[in-house]
Amino acid sequence: MRVAILGLGDIGRLVARCALKRGYSVVGGVDIDPAKIGADVGELAGVGRIGKQVYGSLEDLMKNEDIDVLFQSTTSYLDQAYKQFKPAVENGISIVSTCETLVYPYYRYPELAAEIDRVARHSGAAVLGAGINPGYLLDVLPVFMTAPCISVESIVAVRQLDAAKRRPPFRKKVGVGMRLEEYSEKLRRGEYTGHVGMAESALLIAKALRIRVDGVEEDQVPVAADRTFESAGITVRPGEVRGVESRCVVRSAGREAVRLEFKALVGAEEYEEVTIRGEPSITWRSSGTPGDLGT
Amino acid sequence: MRVAILGLGDIGRLVARCALKRGYSVVGGVDIDPAKIGADVGELAGVGRIGKQVYGSLEDLMKNEDIDVLFQSTTSYLDQAYKQFKPAVENGISIVSTCETLVYPYYRYPELAAEIDRVARHSGAAVLGAGINPGYLLDVLPVFMTAPCISVESIVAVRQLDAAKRRPPFRKKVGVGMRLEEYSEKLRRGEYTGHVGMAESALLIAKALRIRVDGVEEDQVPVAADRTFESAGITVRPGEVRGVESRCVVRSAGREAVRLEFKALVGAEEYEEVTIRGEPSITWRSSGTPGDLGT
Repeated sequence: MRVAILGLGDIGRLVARCALKRGYSVVGGVDIDPAKIGADVGELAGVGRIGKQVYGSLEDLMKNEDIDVLFQSTTSYLDQAYKQFKPAVENGISIVSTCETLVYPYYRYPELAAEIDRVARHSGAAVLGAGINPGYLLDVLPVFMTAPCISVESIVAVRQLDAAKRRPPFRKKVGVGMRLEEYSEKLRRGEYTGHVGMAESALLIAKALRIRVDGVEEDQVPVAADRTFESAGITVRPGEVRGVESRCVVRSAGREAVRLEFKALVGAEEYEEVTIRGEPSITWRSSGTPGDLGT
Repeated sequence: MRVAILGLGDIGRLVARCALKRGYSVVGGVDIDPAKIGADVGELAGVGRIGKQVYGSLEDLMKNEDIDVLFQSTTSYLDQAYKQFKPAVENGISIVSTCETLVYPYYRYPELAAEIDRVARHSGAAVLGAGINPGYLLDVLPVFMTAPCISVESIVAVRQLDAAKRRPPFRKKVGVGMRLEEYSEKLRRGEYTGHVGMAESALLIAKALRIRVDGVEEDQVPVAADRTFESAGITVRPGEVRGVESRCVVRSAGREAVRLEFKALVGAEEYEEVTIRGEPSITWRSSGTPGDLGT
């Protein structure tokens, strides 16, 4: 399978490395960073020269290479992501994207979701929003864990991770080390995104389990350090931001049917926990899905 | 979807109850027990009369009812199971079976697996060996848990349950309360089966993860009580059988690539634990998948 990478930031380079390790034929990449254009994709991915380069635009890449699947890792928002991968979809190239809001596009971008579906059906491409969170840990895996249940009343899924162990762009978007007022203000203004995709995960669960959605509530709270935290070479002092806690609740028939919590805090214990109430009730807890492989 | 139940023992009746709760149209059943023939399937399932009866043979059922899918819960061994469901497959009726050895039929019944495949393709039926163990807890779920991993070196999956909380036929097949010598002898002679399906689960994992299988080792050890155990109204005295421990190991390139353990012991703590070694390594542990819903 011939694959290409759109966006060679931290995650895009990791995707390229995985693709090469899995034996896919990586035929090129696209980035807007002048310092990356012309570079060898294998070298950027840290596995050595493969003789395939980074282009400055998707059009240039498509002119020079045959592509089956385009991996995209650039933005959390589908309106921006779609502008970037649209030419590929129109040419029948399938998309696998880390764009969080593409995991369940019908919530924030219902019209765009319909348009992408139309264009993709016409060209024969598939378009998938994938990833571990959203896309697996707090949605697809919990649904899979309900397999032994005759009935499910509610699902609570929690993920907690040590923000110090994550890549710099992740630490930045969850505010690590900033003053609380400043980060809160930037979150409010949308300048910083925090964690994106909680409602997407919750609605994916609701859809899979045929839960009627009467309401969706999302919130995101920056957490200030109440003492000094040190982890993985990162220090956060009292009053500075340790990270964020995100929550999403889906209400159905007057009760909480789905509750998701995501806590990215410097120095926090890492784990996931899925609690299913139903017949039978089952709880699964993990040792954590570490690092940016589990973004 | 019109479904029918072949075998209305403890599990078959539970399957009928689930099917009715899920809204499937249950059109009848088959059993060889004269006391059940002519009975109402809904009444046997404990949900009240549905006006559909148990027939004495699959042929009688097929003569009287249209069926899309036949659920079978009768035996652990595919040679016996196939004799029972063959007329349905030949008539294009799909099979979902709890037969443990059908979950991965290519190991113990390679010729039969090929024959079933041929007959089913010809008639358009699907034939699936399903269940929670084998079929989910120690195979499909652990494979699903490797989704965040770039590479997997090995998988260890353990299931431990309290045999006292299981249905009487299960307790019997794991020897609960018998004298150790007597049960060991019956296991050796094949009169009692213990737990069936460990190699099937291990080989399913190996196939899904593309692990080359150099060897498969299975063993099953009856465990004698070293003190008195009491649980769920069942008492096991010192020297009597508490249950069995089953193990299966798949070797690949000189190492253990897959190790499965199943422990069904009166009074044991209930849990499952899946340990994946790879990039990254992840462990998941559950509160247990209780009772016969998780057979």
